Amino acid sequence: MMLKVYGMKTSGNCYKVQLALEQLEIPYEWEEVDIMTGVTRKPGFLAKNPNGRVPTLEVSPGKYLPESNAILCYLAEGTPLWPAGRWERAQALQWMFFEQYSHEPYVAVARFICKFLPPDHPRQAELPRVRERAHQALAVMERHLAAQPFLVQTGYSVADIALFAYTHAAADGGIALDGYPSINAWIRRVTAQPRFVPMVPMP
Amino acid sequence: MMLKVYGMKTSGNCYKVQLALEQLEIPYEWEEVDIMTGVTRKPGFLAKNPNGRVPTLEVSPGKYLPESNAILCYLAEGTPLWPAGRWERAQALQWMFFEQYSHEPYVAVARFICKFLPPDHPRQAELPRVRERAHQALAVMERHLAAQPFLVQTGYSVADIALFAYTHAAADGGIALDGYPSINAWIRRVTAQPRFVPMVPMP
Repeated sequence: MMLKVYGMKTSGNCYKVQLALEQLEIPYEWEEVDIMTGVTRKPGFLAKNPNGRVPTLEVSPGKYLPESNAILCYLAEGTPLWPAGRWERAQALQWMFFEQYSHEPYVAVARFICKFLPPDHPRQAELPRVRERAHQALAVMERHLAAQPFLVQTGYSVADIALFAYTHAAADGGIALDGYPSINAWIRRVTAQPRFVPMVPMP
Repeated sequence: MMLKVYGMKTSGNCYKVQLALEQLEIPYEWEEVDIMTGVTRKPGFLAKNPNGRVPTLEVSPGKYLPESNAILCYLAEGTPLWPAGRWERAQALQWMFFEQYSHEPYVAVARFICKFLPPDHPRQAELPRVRERAHQALAVMERHLAAQPFLVQTGYSVADIALFAYTHAAADGGIALDGYPSINAWIRRVTAQPRFVPMVPMP
């Protein structure tokens, strides 16, 4: 069967998978899943991913792979998006774990609170701390990208896809990128890559 | 030069690296870094890892690799701890990203609050929610380990090391493992692996 993605196109984690599939010219089906309805916490979806999250990739009937960055590595293996050297692969993974631990919980969560939750939701109170931590993560990226064009020295890779997804949409969470010239130049380099597709904008 | 680990032995993330190095019989130096002194946020350490975290692996003079799970993958490549098949590698990575996103921020953070912060610290208020999310992550592991002995079907791997580190110490954060028979059986299987070393206990 053709690869099938269960995902929500306005989610940065899902967009990572969409962008990699487009750039690798891999045919795929996309089943849009609206996480705001709670469907990912119901038995039908939990049978696909017991952790109840999108994206989840179905690689063959009944064989599912969750975790956006694991999906990126799986898709990219043996392609130019996956570094050829052991040290460079470690660098790519280092940035992808940085993304999930030190970046996404702040840059993506600020966006989620601002764009997906109502303005009177109690989680609005988290925004100052979340934005502060987001800026700490962006400062780490800025310092690195001042010295080289892409996250891994050998060139554009899945690490760039993983970090591009929420970084370029930081303004959705009220996080201004004005003070990050190297990140802005890197965003322009990523969007100039062959077969780049933009993320579906928030309504 | 010999590999050098900057780490704190009572940190689960650092213990992952210690356990992998011991099991792979790779010689290494260990420089103990006490994160509670703030030293990882000072310029000397930030030059090694701009994200200011341990563990950080020095692979050759001035060449540093942060992120515990990226270090595990780097060390394990080409060894039996790194699955040989593409699908199994994706599974290992899936569990390692699960660990950093859905498990460590709850199971490890509960332990940190209970064991590293004073009893009147304001973060004690986070414990009920953190423990609830920890149990959600443990339930995902329990369901999976009821069906197979290790996280990846082909056997013991770095994914087990990554998840063992904080899971087996869950009680330090007031998280009882009584209700998880498959996790307990898996913990016994992990501790029975060749060249297993226990984590340094909290004082």
